Amino acid sequence: MARTRLTDSEITAKLGEIPGFALAKGKLARRFEFADFVTAFGWMTSVALVAEKLDHHPEWKNVYKTVDVELNTHDADGVTEMDFKLARRMNELAANLI
Amino acid sequence: MARTRLTDSEITAKLGEIPGFALAKGKLARRFEFADFVTAFGWMTSVALVAEKLDHHPEWKNVYKTVDVELNTHDADGVTEMDFKLARRMNELAANLI
Amino acid sequence: MARTRLTDSEITAKLGEIPGFALAKGKLARRFEFADFVTAFGWMTSVALVAEKLDHHPEWKNVYKTVDVELNTHDADGVTEMDFKLARRMNELAANLI
Amino acid sequence: MARTRLTDSEITAKLGEIPGFALAKGKLARRFEFADFVTAFGWMTSVALVAEKLDHHPEWKNVYKTVDVELNTHDADGVTEMDFKLARRMNELAANLI
Repeated sequence: MARTRLTDSEITAKLGEIPGFALAKGKLARRFEFADFVTAFGWMTSVALVAEKLDHHPEWKNVYKTVDVELNTHDADGVTEMDFKLARRMNELAANLI
Repeated sequence: MARTRLTDSEITAKLGEIPGFALAKGKLARRFEFADFVTAFGWMTSVALVAEKLDHHPEWKNVYKTVDVELNTHDADGVTEMDFKLARRMNELAANLI
Repeated sequence: MARTRLTDSEITAKLGEIPGFALAKGKLARRFEFADFVTAFGWMTSVALVAEKLDHHPEWKNVYKTVDVELNTHDADGVTEMDFKLARRMNELAANLI
Repeated sequence: MARTRLTDSEITAKLGEIPGFALAKGKLARRFEFADFVTAFGWMTSVALVAEKLDHHPEWKNVYKTVDVELNTHDADGVTEMDFKLARRMNELAANLI
């Protein structure tokens, strides 16, 4: 199920689906770097729309053109399929911008 | 100067700088169509950041994945270099998304 | 049901739920006017998040600090409960900003 | 000047202008907590518009309805009047939302 905690070996096996992400401190983590703040924040807005619809939100830190993302599922106390889903959408939305 | 009204022949000569735009009812007009609302609104947010910084804002209408833009300069009662500047940035920001 | 077309008398009876909106050309319509573009576009972003989650999007036109909204349901060829839902959320999100 | 580094005593004297902010690790820091993600991200978008116009951007981390902000001026290696300016606008824009 989408919000069931995945094991570390399940996570590792699936990391290939989300290039750029790694498992760090029990979370899916990636740094996105854009051309400038205008591009970075436009991407964040698209991701925010996706996250609110999924009812699954990222931890993310923005400094100018950089966005550091960490994804896990609080209720499952770990990484779930929902985190992979959001990560895939983040990558898709960034694909044309980076 | 950036906010001096351009003549129709000046505008026509410069339209080549902003593919997709046409002169309609005294304004620079273009329809942008994106893959979906998520992409359209992310682009609008990037454009909003540019517009606020330029202190030059568009008239724009959004319906789902479509954004209809009309640009002119109220104080000059016509089209100015500022409108071309904003149109160029709109095109640049859309280039990777459309 | 949420996406069943409402009759004009049903719509009129419910307009009291959404102060500021009127029925115009078969749509729920309201002009929102904010202090400035910064406030207007922040509100639009909140509304965009709600709309994408509802899978029900507005027609809206923004000119600087003004946003003209028109709501109807394309598939029902008229106004439905979904339009009232989105209108209520627009009003709630604007309540502290106008 | 706006981007001249302020001393710690100057900063302390001015903290009263920006309720909720404190000096932490050489930065102006505040946690903003909103009703929900929709409100939090709408506020972030308004702040992003202000920041881009000022050409002075925050470090900020968002987790659902919480936004942790840290402000300093990289080029001055400290806190400047620009940081106070952005902090004041953040507070103003949050005033009606929190």
